[in-house]
Amino acid sequence: MTSFRLAMIQLAVTASKADNLKNAFLKIKEAANAGAQIVALPECFNSPYGVDYFPEYAEPVPNGETSRRLSEWSRENKVYLVGGSIPESGENGKLYNTCTIWSPNGDLLGSHRKVHLFDIDIPGKISFQESKVLSSGQHLTTFDTEFCRIGVGICYDLRFAEMAQLYREKGCQLLIYPGAFNMTTGPAHWKLLQQARAIDNQLYVASVSPARVEQAPYVAWGHSLAVNPWGKIITEAEETETIVYADIDLKYLQEIREQIPLTKQRRRDMYEIKEPIITAAAPSVVI
Amino acid sequence: MTSFRLAMIQLAVTASKADNLKNAFLKIKEAANAGAQIVALPECFNSPYGVDYFPEYAEPVPNGETSRRLSEWSRENKVYLVGGSIPESGENGKLYNTCTIWSPNGDLLGSHRKVHLFDIDIPGKISFQESKVLSSGQHLTTFDTEFCRIGVGICYDLRFAEMAQLYREKGCQLLIYPGAFNMTTGPAHWKLLQQARAIDNQLYVASVSPARVEQAPYVAWGHSLAVNPWGKIITEAEETETIVYADIDLKYLQEIREQIPLTKQRRRDMYEIKEPIITAAAPSVVI
Repeated sequence: MTSFRLAMIQLAVTASKADNLKNAFLKIKEAANAGAQIVALPECFNSPYGVDYFPEYAEPVPNGETSRRLSEWSRENKVYLVGGSIPESGENGKLYNTCTIWSPNGDLLGSHRKVHLFDIDIPGKISFQESKVLSSGQHLTTFDTEFCRIGVGICYDLRFAEMAQLYREKGCQLLIYPGAFNMTTGPAHWKLLQQARAIDNQLYVASVSPARVEQAPYVAWGHSLAVNPWGKIITEAEETETIVYADIDLKYLQEIREQIPLTKQRRRDMYEIKEPIITAAAPSVVI
Repeated sequence: MTSFRLAMIQLAVTASKADNLKNAFLKIKEAANAGAQIVALPECFNSPYGVDYFPEYAEPVPNGETSRRLSEWSRENKVYLVGGSIPESGENGKLYNTCTIWSPNGDLLGSHRKVHLFDIDIPGKISFQESKVLSSGQHLTTFDTEFCRIGVGICYDLRFAEMAQLYREKGCQLLIYPGAFNMTTGPAHWKLLQQARAIDNQLYVASVSPARVEQAPYVAWGHSLAVNPWGKIITEAEETETIVYADIDLKYLQEIREQIPLTKQRRRDMYEIKEPIITAAAPSVVI
């Protein structure tokens, strides 16, 4: 299959976890009925976004209520479900910002803990320190479908080109970023960063933001969107609650990669990007 | 000095080398009189752009006519001169697409041979194979000024994020790309790629295109521009011959790097980008 339909659910997240879950349930069903084969939720879709909320809303993965529901919904609707993210209560009392990924059978395919924590300080605009309460993930996350391999990042992960470059090396043809950029970085960088990842790596990029809620403690930019491998925006939400759809065409992707054969042309003799080799002990010297 | 003025000369290149040199001479003087401390010319500024022209217009570097002129002009005008590029006749009959860089004393500071040759084939739009006649460069090129360190790439080099990432690692605060995108890739990618390099690496990026000449064998996009480290376009030419100026503010660059501290936040435990280690012999061990 060289094409499939992706749905991005730009959910209006409230302070009520029960309401958020119910709303997600209805929207996932709506997306599946509209023909979506992969459905993605936004970052922090069951909790308000903020360091004061994470401890209270956190759940274990995959043995928490939200994981159980995501598993059910993916199975009932026969869709791949990229479960945005939730605050996860992990080992040793650690908290993570975590995306779980579910198969159309309801099986857990992967779990991505946000690798790059959102710590920025733009005076007079926005200051945020996720690292006050969250721990960072330690691995990249890809999953396979009958359509293609897909890489997952969460929000601030999008700023680090290396992650997308490694996903490309691993054979991904689509990257999905649940993310909640804000009213300062959103208009400046949200779209551009996704276009950059798409053009540089010649793949599809999709993002899913919560809807903008002006009275929320953290006001999200919205504008969930999808970009094709030529860098063109193929669908984009406004700021309100909505579902947007992207038809992903892997034949088109292949054409772009043949027309501008960047991968073959990379100068691997002059630079390389890779995962460091983890050595358990110091390198030994043979004399 | 935390700020300086950069001039980008969007030259209308003709088939006459003598006319091109005379025109460049006049424009460099104009830019210097307007307060530019660094002046940059476009790709292939002394020759039409095309594989059929390169052998005829090629000169040795730095012992050719164009190099001699560039040295004179930089000295006379007391500016750093980034000499766009020219077809270079190198060792063993090889040809290169080469940018020479000159100090305000007229000294050669560096010479960048285009590393990534422009070989693309978009049916019905554009097909071009630089590699039919050109050889590719084998090294990255940076040079130091009293303002900051600057990295240089030529045109298609811009598509390879790794080069800009390495320039950032090497301490560059400005990247300059002489380049001639075309009427297909220009509108789609020229600006976006520069914004991507600027945002991802938190530095200034400037490009210098030849002016668009509709009857030329290769029609350049024009639109020489400069982007600040926030990704904002600070100056942009239209398609006709012109000089555009950018005031580069290194204090602002430092603020951006402190507000969104990407370099500190990079997960070097999870990915790394580097130049491969060329081992001539096994590393020696001191005991």
